Amino acid sequence: MFHLSQRMESVQDPVIPIIGRMVREAPGTINFGQGVAHYPPPPQALDAYQFFLADPANHKYHAVDGLPVLKQKLMEKLCVENGILLNSAQGGDARLCVTAGGNMAFLNAALAITDPGDEIIILTPFYFNHEMAVRIAGCKPVFAATDENFQPNLNALLDAITERTKAVLTVSPNNPTGAVYSEAILRSINRICLERSLYHIHDEAYEYFTYNNASHFSPGSIDSANQHTISLFSFSKSYGFAGWRIGYMTFPARLESAIQKIQDTNLICPPLVSQYAAAGALEAGGAYCKKFTQSYGEVRLMILNELRKIEDLCTVPPADGAFYFFLKINTNISPMQLAQQLILEHQVALMPGHAFGMDQGCYLRLSYGALSPEQTVEGAARLIQGLRAIIGSQ
Amino acid sequence: MFHLSQRMESVQDPVIPIIGRMVREAPGTINFGQGVAHYPPPPQALDAYQFFLADPANHKYHAVDGLPVLKQKLMEKLCVENGILLNSAQGGDARLCVTAGGNMAFLNAALAITDPGDEIIILTPFYFNHEMAVRIAGCKPVFAATDENFQPNLNALLDAITERTKAVLTVSPNNPTGAVYSEAILRSINRICLERSLYHIHDEAYEYFTYNNASHFSPGSIDSANQHTISLFSFSKSYGFAGWRIGYMTFPARLESAIQKIQDTNLICPPLVSQYAAAGALEAGGAYCKKFTQSYGEVRLMILNELRKIEDLCTVPPADGAFYFFLKINTNISPMQLAQQLILEHQVALMPGHAFGMDQGCYLRLSYGALSPEQTVEGAARLIQGLRAIIGSQ
Repeated sequence: MFHLSQRMESVQDPVIPIIGRMVREAPGTINFGQGVAHYPPPPQALDAYQFFLADPANHKYHAVDGLPVLKQKLMEKLCVENGILLNSAQGGDARLCVTAGGNMAFLNAALAITDPGDEIIILTPFYFNHEMAVRIAGCKPVFAATDENFQPNLNALLDAITERTKAVLTVSPNNPTGAVYSEAILRSINRICLERSLYHIHDEAYEYFTYNNASHFSPGSIDSANQHTISLFSFSKSYGFAGWRIGYMTFPARLESAIQKIQDTNLICPPLVSQYAAAGALEAGGAYCKKFTQSYGEVRLMILNELRKIEDLCTVPPADGAFYFFLKINTNISPMQLAQQLILEHQVALMPGHAFGMDQGCYLRLSYGALSPEQTVEGAARLIQGLRAIIGSQ
Repeated sequence: MFHLSQRMESVQDPVIPIIGRMVREAPGTINFGQGVAHYPPPPQALDAYQFFLADPANHKYHAVDGLPVLKQKLMEKLCVENGILLNSAQGGDARLCVTAGGNMAFLNAALAITDPGDEIIILTPFYFNHEMAVRIAGCKPVFAATDENFQPNLNALLDAITERTKAVLTVSPNNPTGAVYSEAILRSINRICLERSLYHIHDEAYEYFTYNNASHFSPGSIDSANQHTISLFSFSKSYGFAGWRIGYMTFPARLESAIQKIQDTNLICPPLVSQYAAAGALEAGGAYCKKFTQSYGEVRLMILNELRKIEDLCTVPPADGAFYFFLKINTNISPMQLAQQLILEHQVALMPGHAFGMDQGCYLRLSYGALSPEQTVEGAARLIQGLRAIIGSQ
């Protein structure tokens, strides 16, 4: 009696808690595992509390899809920076909803466009919460492999489409790989979705995090995209905002009622205090994030240079975005065992690749988002020493 | 192409936006429609921002199920006030999760215990978001009628159980009726659920709002309840906290992993700034709310006295809790038409009963939660005048 639902049994126990516990139990570990920015929100965000407090109505419920003042700023940003046009004045008709984070935006989308038993195509390796969201919606995640550089493989994607497919999900810049998809490939995927009557859901949480002259492209800006493209955004990384829980999504007008019902049922409205902070953060704007991506770019190069020392042990596919490398380790050791040994024997933590759906081969995700440059230098040294010690002698 | 999912098509368009728009378009309308408290959070909640700011780690992700400092305070409150025992030191083994509001707590529960196609029994009239959550989970809400006083009818409840039933939901004090369920009836329902291997989900968002010597009972406190009872709580009403989005839930230990996965996928963690505010609110404690319920009690009596003047037009079942009356209007006019006429012709707004699943008969929900005593006096006068004018001449 009182069994768990099969729905939740089919959701794998994430590796994250195991690794998290090991890191907590090994003080002094340098943690390349955390997918979070090291910097705080801009002062404008924190100062917005006074404006929040000034209106007692802010303690009550507000619009399901976000405060008008925040939505207005986001509409301008989406138009200018992403080329996503929201209202008739802008010449578009996409709709906007503020959420309590980017995860919620994807869950909203999945629930709005699917019925139980439907399928959503996810490219591997993937962000584990995307897989979980699809399963929680009662749907089946269908995995399409990427190529050796973690770029989309259009043939694999086409092969994954069935009669139950409702959407293709892409994430660029990518978590967990750091890959940045080109405008050309995103246009191809968006067109495939259009031709096959599928939604194209594109997660742009890392839009500001590009290096090495890579440029970010929003498929929601494509002329023919407005009827089938859902774009997901987050303040968590860009504005050092993870604890505040603010994201947003744009979507075709026909989904507006469904998205609003889902959000009302789930959240009622995004927390007002966080929405004020988000509106404050937009005063600082993307320039605030870009200030930090410059230093991330330097850290990234330093890690790449270090990893070149062990090219025989470790392949590093191009990773021009986000703050991740997805390392292919040339070993038969399981990624979980390798991650455990790195923590216990070398005090450096990375996430094992099977947490991201890579069941074959030994991969590790290295996040340099949460660390200071000094910690990163020390962590890279430990990683190289650790990999040499654990697998160099094989 | 690009249809909405049937899942969302099966969710009725809520009446709420229609009524909301009419109220906005008729300035000066006294709004008995809003299910929200009129008072602000206690000062301790608003002052907690300084403590939140003092630790930069608060801008990052934290535990999925809530801050330890907040959970500790909630555990003490649940033990002392509700008799729900959480850890072995308290002699219990229920688990606790902080959520972004009570709605999310119910959605978490529904997703954790059901598979698509399962059923959850809901008593009519119901809170519309409960029905929506069940449909969004891909499940079927099965409705069990209450008696003429909106108290549970055990035979109707038993008749509603099928092989696909996973849970019975009760809400006391009740939204939308204001009914308070006795300890005896809640024990009976909890026992039925135990015997039939169903979960008993109990929503206690209005726990502090009781009048007329009615007392609140938490079925999670029953000795045999710990393996099948899920209890839902909210800060929204008690602490004037609706815009901050904090609720919490207790549940059997076996559901812990599922609930954490669902919340991670949906929210990652409750907003830290709101959790600090909630911890501050608990310094004020339930006494803060009780201060306001005294004045609600006076307002409630005043409304009851006024409504006695139109006993021939309007029946008022006992409503000793929350801040609602669910009025049975003796007319053949549809509740939507009546609600519209009351707004347009008499500048007083109530929610029509079919928003709460009452398709037969003409019911109106009157909320006195959001209004000052002065507004309530004026609103009651308009309501009585309006009902006399619209249906008194029939």
